[in-house]
Amino acid sequence: MKLIDPWGAELPEDYTSIIKDFGLEHFDPKLFPEANRVMRRGVVFAGRDLGRISEAIKHKKPYYVLSGIMPSGDRIHFGNKVVVENIKYFQEHGATSTYMLVADLEAASARGVTLEEARRRAIEFHIPAYIALGLDPKKTTFYFQSENQKVLHLAYEFAKKVTSAEFRAIYGTNDPGRVMAALTQAGDILFPQMDQRMPGIIPVGIDQDPHLRLTRDICHRTNEKYGFVAPSAIYHKYTPSLDGDLKMSKSKPESCVELPEPVNAVLKKVKRAKTGGRDTEDEQRKKGGIPEICMIFEMYKQHLIEDDKELDKVYKDCTKGELLCGTDKANACNRMGTFMEDFTRKLEKARNSIDKLNFIRL
Amino acid sequence: MKLIDPWGAELPEDYTSIIKDFGLEHFDPKLFPEANRVMRRGVVFAGRDLGRISEAIKHKKPYYVLSGIMPSGDRIHFGNKVVVENIKYFQEHGATSTYMLVADLEAASARGVTLEEARRRAIEFHIPAYIALGLDPKKTTFYFQSENQKVLHLAYEFAKKVTSAEFRAIYGTNDPGRVMAALTQAGDILFPQMDQRMPGIIPVGIDQDPHLRLTRDICHRTNEKYGFVAPSAIYHKYTPSLDGDLKMSKSKPESCVELPEPVNAVLKKVKRAKTGGRDTEDEQRKKGGIPEICMIFEMYKQHLIEDDKELDKVYKDCTKGELLCGTDKANACNRMGTFMEDFTRKLEKARNSIDKLNFIRL
Repeated sequence: MKLIDPWGAELPEDYTSIIKDFGLEHFDPKLFPEANRVMRRGVVFAGRDLGRISEAIKHKKPYYVLSGIMPSGDRIHFGNKVVVENIKYFQEHGATSTYMLVADLEAASARGVTLEEARRRAIEFHIPAYIALGLDPKKTTFYFQSENQKVLHLAYEFAKKVTSAEFRAIYGTNDPGRVMAALTQAGDILFPQMDQRMPGIIPVGIDQDPHLRLTRDICHRTNEKYGFVAPSAIYHKYTPSLDGDLKMSKSKPESCVELPEPVNAVLKKVKRAKTGGRDTEDEQRKKGGIPEICMIFEMYKQHLIEDDKELDKVYKDCTKGELLCGTDKANACNRMGTFMEDFTRKLEKARNSIDKLNFIRL
Repeated sequence: MKLIDPWGAELPEDYTSIIKDFGLEHFDPKLFPEANRVMRRGVVFAGRDLGRISEAIKHKKPYYVLSGIMPSGDRIHFGNKVVVENIKYFQEHGATSTYMLVADLEAASARGVTLEEARRRAIEFHIPAYIALGLDPKKTTFYFQSENQKVLHLAYEFAKKVTSAEFRAIYGTNDPGRVMAALTQAGDILFPQMDQRMPGIIPVGIDQDPHLRLTRDICHRTNEKYGFVAPSAIYHKYTPSLDGDLKMSKSKPESCVELPEPVNAVLKKVKRAKTGGRDTEDEQRKKGGIPEICMIFEMYKQHLIEDDKELDKVYKDCTKGELLCGTDKANACNRMGTFMEDFTRKLEKARNSIDKLNFIRL
């Protein structure tokens, strides 16, 4: 059996096979009115129980959106940006409530980060960064796992519902820290239903599907007591590495852009990115470039060009041989520089209003 | 490797081999001034780091005593009585603080008892029962695991310090509920040191040694951050089954006395207990009985006769053939009846003053 490891570096070979192997639904943007850029362009590619959320949006029924912050580093990546864009979409399309949890206990149990350090990083960076990327803080309830007693109680109760063998089948490990982290995530995901049962949507990277499967299993096993609605999920693809690999990774810093990074450093990386250019300028003018394998185009598609017509023009100019890689990279640098400056400015602004956020406290 | 399973029914064949196999210390009552009945009579038979506690008592240095209540049933057994007698001993011999925790999260994660049910049982029965058996409530701090945030935070932090393989080596299982329960126990055991590092003594049945080993391992692994003093433990033997087996068990109700039980039911069981009597009365008058294999004598030794001289007289009268089993069982019934009535009366009294206890609350 293939495993997706939410803590590991293992990469799925092919998104289509993931959908088949794990019984996911293909994401159909038609289900979601005014689908956002990442939905329209296939960056969001799969999900679970999407119809339930589509119905809630169309018929204005209650549902919640929830995501988590892992405060183990002091930078984030483009994947987090996609998550925020999806949260924002649901915030603008009828979500009754939005929960952003800080997974400080997971950081402690699975990664060895102290609670104090996790708290500091979340307050100083991660939460402001999510707001800078578009999260609407006024519609969002924040909490630290370590301060949400109901979540912890659910985690302990759920522990009795899962065997060691099942855990290993889902996660490929039984490490105590990961067991506790996963059960706590299940508590997080279902906590919003403690007051009212309703559908919930969890926008995450595909590597987080194991947590969703565990949580959905637990829903069925606690159905008699709780009757939780099994949570829905939408999954986005990895942001590809600038060298063409499936996933950006800090292990190859020259092909990985984190948020924030100094603009100069980023531009150097963009200039070295893999493109769909031909061997010679002459050949490229004749045959055109191949945007399908170009990491610059992929960055446009996923992150840097909002307008579909504008993206289409880049595609056509490239394939017609009118837009060459040098010019295109210069354009990309402009866009990336603008994005990074904008992000840094908004981050600073969000930091200054951290006291006004709505936190669940003990 | 042999395992002691704190959740299971597996019985160690021989206490001496347990001491050897698990690297325990023989319990030496001379280390403890005014050793209590169960210490003097070998019911307490082993321990870990006992010298540290002996020193603290003799030199009036700070140390704590901690034990836990598992609120999964609505009766307790004689093993709990031994625990309380040992707690009482330390309360009377200089313990700076006493903690009694209610393992409600363990009841949920390892046994599937809801937190509400665990709380009800603890308040209505277990805590009053411990007080009825001699726990000094004025010197005791109580808490529910589910309400002790510091304990939970320690549990998550400790999770990162133990691997799945180590867990299986200690417990013979990796079941998520047991993993969480065990790590939470480690948090409980070390929580009293959060304000001040000091030795602590944990009086428990020998089947609880795995928790102590885990906790002591965790102390070493978190030494740089916390510098916890590794906890000491004293272990008592199982109360033997009235039919002569090593351990009383609810699975054989006719040979098991729980607390409380209706006096009439108990007396019936006592009358059927295995003794060290001979085949005929004549033979017994000539050769004397064998108290070493008599469950009535074992109940005297462990629980029903406080005075050493009185116990000695029973021993001699039996071995001289002057005290026959019929008379002895009638005496035992008297003592058991008195004990059970006394316990029931004190239980009622303790129930009525439950509001005055010192609880840690969120």
